[in-house]
Amino acid sequence: MASRSQFALALRRARIESMPHTRASLRRLPQKRWQSTTDTEETEGVAKETAGTSKTVKFTSETYPSIKRDSKFAQITEEHVTFFRDLLGAQSAVIDGVTKDATDDIEPFNGDWMRKYRGHTKLVLKPGSTEEVGKLLKYCNDNMLAVVPQGGNSGLVGGSVPVFDEIVMNMSRMNQIRSFDKVSGTLVADAGCILEVVDNYLAEKGHIFPLDLGAKGSCQIGGNVATNAGGLRLLRYGSLHGNVLGIEAVLPDGTIVDDLSKLRKNNTGYDLKQLFIGGEGTIGIITGISILCPQRSKAINVAFFGLESYEKVQQAFLEAKGQLSEILSAFELMDSSSQDLVFSVTKNKRPLEGKYPFYCLIETSGSNSDHDTEKLEKFLENVMENEIVLDGVVAQDETQIRALWSWREGVPECLGHWGGVFKYDLSIPISELYLLVEETKQKIVEAGLLGDTPDHPVVDVVGYGHMGDSNLHLNVAVRSYDKRVEKVLEPFVYEWVGKRNGSISAEHGLGLAKKNYIGYSRSDTMIRLMKQIKDLYDPNGIMNPYKYI
Amino acid sequence: MASRSQFALALRRARIESMPHTRASLRRLPQKRWQSTTDTEETEGVAKETAGTSKTVKFTSETYPSIKRDSKFAQITEEHVTFFRDLLGAQSAVIDGVTKDATDDIEPFNGDWMRKYRGHTKLVLKPGSTEEVGKLLKYCNDNMLAVVPQGGNSGLVGGSVPVFDEIVMNMSRMNQIRSFDKVSGTLVADAGCILEVVDNYLAEKGHIFPLDLGAKGSCQIGGNVATNAGGLRLLRYGSLHGNVLGIEAVLPDGTIVDDLSKLRKNNTGYDLKQLFIGGEGTIGIITGISILCPQRSKAINVAFFGLESYEKVQQAFLEAKGQLSEILSAFELMDSSSQDLVFSVTKNKRPLEGKYPFYCLIETSGSNSDHDTEKLEKFLENVMENEIVLDGVVAQDETQIRALWSWREGVPECLGHWGGVFKYDLSIPISELYLLVEETKQKIVEAGLLGDTPDHPVVDVVGYGHMGDSNLHLNVAVRSYDKRVEKVLEPFVYEWVGKRNGSISAEHGLGLAKKNYIGYSRSDTMIRLMKQIKDLYDPNGIMNPYKYI
Repeated sequence: MASRSQFALALRRARIESMPHTRASLRRLPQKRWQSTTDTEETEGVAKETAGTSKTVKFTSETYPSIKRDSKFAQITEEHVTFFRDLLGAQSAVIDGVTKDATDDIEPFNGDWMRKYRGHTKLVLKPGSTEEVGKLLKYCNDNMLAVVPQGGNSGLVGGSVPVFDEIVMNMSRMNQIRSFDKVSGTLVADAGCILEVVDNYLAEKGHIFPLDLGAKGSCQIGGNVATNAGGLRLLRYGSLHGNVLGIEAVLPDGTIVDDLSKLRKNNTGYDLKQLFIGGEGTIGIITGISILCPQRSKAINVAFFGLESYEKVQQAFLEAKGQLSEILSAFELMDSSSQDLVFSVTKNKRPLEGKYPFYCLIETSGSNSDHDTEKLEKFLENVMENEIVLDGVVAQDETQIRALWSWREGVPECLGHWGGVFKYDLSIPISELYLLVEETKQKIVEAGLLGDTPDHPVVDVVGYGHMGDSNLHLNVAVRSYDKRVEKVLEPFVYEWVGKRNGSISAEHGLGLAKKNYIGYSRSDTMIRLMKQIKDLYDPNGIMNPYKYI
Repeated sequence: MASRSQFALALRRARIESMPHTRASLRRLPQKRWQSTTDTEETEGVAKETAGTSKTVKFTSETYPSIKRDSKFAQITEEHVTFFRDLLGAQSAVIDGVTKDATDDIEPFNGDWMRKYRGHTKLVLKPGSTEEVGKLLKYCNDNMLAVVPQGGNSGLVGGSVPVFDEIVMNMSRMNQIRSFDKVSGTLVADAGCILEVVDNYLAEKGHIFPLDLGAKGSCQIGGNVATNAGGLRLLRYGSLHGNVLGIEAVLPDGTIVDDLSKLRKNNTGYDLKQLFIGGEGTIGIITGISILCPQRSKAINVAFFGLESYEKVQQAFLEAKGQLSEILSAFELMDSSSQDLVFSVTKNKRPLEGKYPFYCLIETSGSNSDHDTEKLEKFLENVMENEIVLDGVVAQDETQIRALWSWREGVPECLGHWGGVFKYDLSIPISELYLLVEETKQKIVEAGLLGDTPDHPVVDVVGYGHMGDSNLHLNVAVRSYDKRVEKVLEPFVYEWVGKRNGSISAEHGLGLAKKNYIGYSRSDTMIRLMKQIKDLYDPNGIMNPYKYI
């Protein structure tokens, strides 16, 4: 047990090393693999480099033979291609396999960065304006051509890639910031803007985008809104349902939903834009957003500490909420397994000298550095004195802040090191949140699937995530996607969460991956009401078929 | 011009007197007039005592002769009454004029607290459970009986009272807190809970309801959510679209929408609950809500100051956002006319010695009193040094905090002193927000309608409101509801706001009052899409007819 003075010493020593994998470089890794179109949606983001090209990935249609192409959809013909090329110009309609002169490489648009899903599209459209999106969708709807909206293609649930030959509507050309008002903090921008580009623009104005996630270097703000991304600082800035002030979207019939209000308060009728937030492109395509961007905090502090039990983690969280209150901007949980795996991959020096069952990362951000430091030190002294945490360090500069964050943000990348990862993104009442990791590990061990040798498919079962939002990432690192592992995990995990009225998708969305499991989080009545909405806006069902609900 | 030292002196002197009309007493005034059922929805709240009972108020059907009772709705029969009484018991079905033995006074349910609207209902139902609401609505839907949901009946736009003989569904019996989780801050409660009761409950647990408004003593949280109430601290805690985690509601066909999630993150399908937030009871009745309640701040500070121009008000706002940042919880604007009228009614001692064209009230709330005081004093010194504000005071205790707030919250009450008030609740881009008040006053003066003598209908044109949310309350205090005044105001005000892409209803809703003006804030496409939603959930149109869109 470290004493108060020992910890104060630790604070002063700040024995964090500058690590090779800084947060910024981790964030950008995926771009290298898939050129401009792919990356991760969330901190889940950074997968390991694996051999081969996407052409070696199994087709989704083979992995899920029970999903059949819906025969109501038309096949793409040369006539269709002529219409699209006449409208957009040849360079904005990427074609492969429809016409003889096709030379474009369409593969990056067919697969996801995790190499889990691969479609058969032959056509990628890149509209340059909302009006073009309107004309394209109307044509597709009139001709029964299925469409997949695609932003940065950084999702984790297969939502932004086709299953069969759906046309990919790629939003990357719509990447202009339309306006920013410094007094109100309201930004209006095209859906295809890269999150990091927008945030850098806002940083120059002293503001911040109210969402941050590992894939910020490639994900698009339209995709963020369409998937209702959560990310690292929801605890502080709240959800997109509260921050998005307006949306411009196009319905399948070409109708432009012109709900791009810049007003913080606007009680004039049903708040229809909310249906597109988290609608995952199933009722229309978001082409522009208006969003409230808070002032950027002048002072940022990050602390990292070790704890002896999940009980103590909960105590630390309550203390942090109480004492850090308005300046608390992140409270992240990592278990010992997750940190061991990060260490075994990166060999970086650990932030703390000892090893602990649990680790937490706390970030504060506020307007006054002295005040924030005082609050944080008081909090740390308090949790040390009361033996809630066993040891801790506080970053002393930006480099150390990044280094500490890398022990949290590096988890997803490192987990992929051995071959694959079974990933679950869950909301669970906080008191039982970590119990699922323990019970899952026990089941995997009992099934004889976990071990250090190649004949054991499972490397380890780890838990980490956004403690502040009751959001657990349960990950099972594997040497291969073994069916025996899947059988132990599913439907066990979903049933466990369903029993506790949790959510089987906290922030990643349903996509293709969880379409069949929504019943664990939603009643039949709710699913029926959701299908009503889908039928209302997309009666032909052309938008992102085979997915969502 | 006050010097820095003068202002520092002012800070120390804290020359605020304890005033007879404290915030708490102001809040409760309306309850006396309408017994248990009426109050104000917002800080707009507190109207003057006027002579006579509601029976002297003109019927809405007479005020608006162009609105005709829809003949598709059935008349209430004794058979209907029998069904309702059998289901609820006699004491929960208030009847007047249907059966001979009726002795209940139904008038309080027929009128609003402003005495502007009065309906002809003969039947008030008070369900005690969600299941009962389901059975009642299904019966009404099957029998084509129109229904008006009614919470605390504190609205400002006539949304919660009938126009003709619609049945009033009064939610006051559903008033139980269902659960509260201290770790996550999630409260689940019946729709009919009084806001102040809930907030007091939360205060004991160290938490706060993320909404506060003048009518808190009588408004119900279900009504708050149904009207998407904004209130005093939206600047800090954000809108209900972000804070409400789940909703339980009943559709007209009796379907129970069981979307009462307690999770902060839940990306499992369309976020249907959002349609009920601000839906004003037109697609169903909210019976329960789940909401995220932040920790209650330990330190509260309130400052009040005078400024020479609206230009300076904007500068002060920007400085407050920058320097007070995470602890700023309210930034309210009052013009000199509004404060003169408050003074002429209350005769209370003014907070500042001098008179200024504009006044602002700033509230901070945070976790550390020393830090907050230091930030606030630094901010005040800075705005004084830079001549952004001319004079100011800071409250020294809870009594003074209430006294300062009374100069903002007392405005609506005092404006009603002369007979009536034309009220507009508008969102306007902040740079032009006050220009509307000036231009409106000019038009009223030019028309010869403003003056000190009884032959002039207009007492004054005043502007005040939630500066932090770009939300202006434009009020015209009158001696009587003179048609000449209305002609000058409408559609001028709506056109002015429409031209600037503002909102004709920032936080009060549409109700009956603004139904015909939504076109100034919404396009034909948006109105068409909203009507689709109405038709989807309420094909018979029984829910709150003649209102909204």
